[in-house]
Amino acid sequence: MYEVELKVRADHDRVRESVVAHGAERVSHVRQVDSYYDAPHREFAETDEALRIRLETDRSAGDGAPTTKLTYKGPLVEAESKSREEHETAVADAEAMAGVLSGLGFEPAATVEKERESFQLGEYTLMLDHVDGLGEFVEIEREVSGEAAIEAAREDAAALLRELGLDPAEQIRTSYLGLLLEADTVDGD
Amino acid sequence: MYEVELKVRADHDRVRESVVAHGAERVSHVRQVDSYYDAPHREFAETDEALRIRLETDRSAGDGAPTTKLTYKGPLVEAESKSREEHETAVADAEAMAGVLSGLGFEPAATVEKERESFQLGEYTLMLDHVDGLGEFVEIEREVSGEAAIEAAREDAAALLRELGLDPAEQIRTSYLGLLLEADTVDGD
Repeated sequence: MYEVELKVRADHDRVRESVVAHGAERVSHVRQVDSYYDAPHREFAETDEALRIRLETDRSAGDGAPTTKLTYKGPLVEAESKSREEHETAVADAEAMAGVLSGLGFEPAATVEKERESFQLGEYTLMLDHVDGLGEFVEIEREVSGEAAIEAAREDAAALLRELGLDPAEQIRTSYLGLLLEADTVDGD
Repeated sequence: MYEVELKVRADHDRVRESVVAHGAERVSHVRQVDSYYDAPHREFAETDEALRIRLETDRSAGDGAPTTKLTYKGPLVEAESKSREEHETAVADAEAMAGVLSGLGFEPAATVEKERESFQLGEYTLMLDHVDGLGEFVEIEREVSGEAAIEAAREDAAALLRELGLDPAEQIRTSYLGLLLEADTVDGD
C-alpha cells in the first residue's frame, strides 16, 4: 500500500463550509499528543526515521481516557511515492511504554499536539488539523494499492483541494515535527 | 516493591500432590512463548538487561488467541535483593511490535517456551514451569514493599519449599534464558 497525501495551510472556518457542502461526513474528532523520541545509536534526523508514542483522546465522547499507540516509521523506500516501512500497535500502558524506551536509552525529543477532525470524502480522508504552535492545516489522504495508481490519486487529490477553494501548489511537504523544529531554530531555542 | 523468588528443579507430579494438600488454588495455566532481543547499541549479556516480547495463551480457556506483552528489565539495582527496574505493557499487535523493534535494529536472539501453572499459596505465588528443552521447575515468588522485609520473606519461601518436600539449597539463580544459552554452548551450537 502507498499513501498519497497533500497538506496545505488553511483557515478551518472557511474550509468547513465547503467540506460540508461537498457532502463529507465527519468521522472523528480527536486530540493527539505525539511524543517523538531520539535514538541512542542513530540520528533519526539523518536516517529519516521516527519513533513516536501517540496519546489520542476522543473529543466527541466526552473526556474519556486516551488510547496509546507506538509507531515506527522507516526511511522513504522511494522518494517519488513517499512510501515508508511503518509499524504501529496499540499499547495498554503509555507510562510503561515510555519506561521501556527510556530504559533502552531512547529520549523524548519533541512533542506535537493537535486537534484533528477527520471527514470521509469519497475515497479520501480529509483532516482539519489545528497544531499547537503552528496553526491550522488541511490534509487530504488516501491509500492506493499499486505504484501505478499514485499519480492519478495525486491529481485527484489536488482537484479536490481546488474544489474546496484551496491551492494544491501551496503543498507543505515538511512534517509537523519538522515545522516545529524549524520554528524552534528560528526562535533560537 | 522488591521481588523475592526461589527456583528449584522439581518433578511436577510429585510436587502437585503436596501443593494441593497445602490447600493451594490453581489460578492459571498458560503457555508462554518469550522472544528475547539483542540490542544494536549494547551487549545485554554484559549490561544485564533484557527486552522481551511474550505471547501468552490461556490453557484453561480452550485455544484462545494469545495476548502479547512487551517487557524491559534493567540491570540489578542491588545484587542482594535482586531488585530491577522493570517496565511492562500489553500490546495489541505482536507482529507490529516485532516490526518496530526490527526497524530500530533490535534482533531476536533466543526463544524460551514454557507451560506455567500458577497456584496461590498464602502470600506466595507458586509456579510449576515446564520449560521446553530444560525440563520441570518450581518457582516460588512474592513481592515485599521494603528492603527490610526481604530476608524474612526469603526464609519463609525456603520453609515453604521444604514443606513441599523440596530443598531450597538447590536454588537455581540463572534465568531460563541463561540456562538455555548455557545448554546451547555445551552442545556446541
